[in-house]
Amino acid sequence: MARGMFITLEGGEGSGKTTQAALVAEALRAAGRRVMVTHEPGGTRAGEAIRAIFLDPALKLEVAAELLLALADRAQHVRERLQPALATGEIVISDRYCDSTVAYQGYGRGFDLKLLADLNRLASDGLRPDLTFVLDCSAEIGLARSRARRAAAAADRFEGERLEFHRRVRDGFLALARDEPDRVMVIDATAPRAAVTARIVAAITARMAS
Amino acid sequence: MARGMFITLEGGEGSGKTTQAALVAEALRAAGRRVMVTHEPGGTRAGEAIRAIFLDPALKLEVAAELLLALADRAQHVRERLQPALATGEIVISDRYCDSTVAYQGYGRGFDLKLLADLNRLASDGLRPDLTFVLDCSAEIGLARSRARRAAAAADRFEGERLEFHRRVRDGFLALARDEPDRVMVIDATAPRAAVTARIVAAITARMAS
Repeated sequence: MARGMFITLEGGEGSGKTTQAALVAEALRAAGRRVMVTHEPGGTRAGEAIRAIFLDPALKLEVAAELLLALADRAQHVRERLQPALATGEIVISDRYCDSTVAYQGYGRGFDLKLLADLNRLASDGLRPDLTFVLDCSAEIGLARSRARRAAAAADRFEGERLEFHRRVRDGFLALARDEPDRVMVIDATAPRAAVTARIVAAITARMAS
Repeated sequence: MARGMFITLEGGEGSGKTTQAALVAEALRAAGRRVMVTHEPGGTRAGEAIRAIFLDPALKLEVAAELLLALADRAQHVRERLQPALATGEIVISDRYCDSTVAYQGYGRGFDLKLLADLNRLASDGLRPDLTFVLDCSAEIGLARSRARRAAAAADRFEGERLEFHRRVRDGFLALARDEPDRVMVIDATAPRAAVTARIVAAITARMAS
């Protein structure tokens, strides 16, 4: 059976990845495709437990521990969910993947990019996305959206970072798109929701046809 | 203030590390030393949450995820507990540390030893033990002890491994002792409990005097 297609959605806080993952899946299913939607951190039972640690500001995670937890989550996710689904020919859409590690821990936290590439290779077992969409907006807009959504809830560990951190993360995603233009496409996340979905679906459909 | 002394206890399941950590600490405290006892996985709030994932066989952790979780735990432990305690001049005794990753994930699971050395360096921030005691016994004896202790409780993820795995882990610890004789001392874990404690305390006392 042909290997399925692996799509990742990337971007900062409040960029609309989770919403778009659901809308894109719906559109592809309406066109008769089998689609699995998943996310990092999380996406497996072990991963949801890791996610809870990862996002709890009270645990005061050290940045090296944060990095290694994200990778542990990915190692489980790739082998337990992504590889098996792709092997059955499904389209798999993951809300975050390796590029988030590069943007958040590399550009945001300052870890060496070569080290992160090696660690991502170990964690991902070499599985690379066929197409990646970076939902791009300014750090100000993204954080405002993300905080409004949570309303009175406590900020998670990334929301609590200063604006400058989120600007570096955005720069990281944009740098990845420049480095790998065949894989990574930047989408204006401030466009109307349906327009964003349509652009992503069109790109996936074109790639499937090629 | 002088940096304290960093002692690690290593060995397979049922080798008596946890008991000896407490007994050695008690003996050193009786001699007027300040001693902190800690353990991996665990030893911090985040680490205890990681430990719960690590040891739960129901989560069916992939071996790469297991490795990265152990390293995440270490990254937090080193920075949150070990480095601060050593900076105040305490003797720190850790039940497991980097050598367990080499023995379990390297010798036991087959991960590349050079890769593990690099990962340990990242996780440990370069912090190396002054002295390491490998509590050594056969895999058969260790497993029998470990299982008896838990009685009716479910085996954890390592107890559930085959005997051959535990033999490789033991070989790993013994290889580490051969490679680094100045740091790593092998102790017969089948000797009477008080004799094991006395040997360890004598070695620590001699190192402190030198």
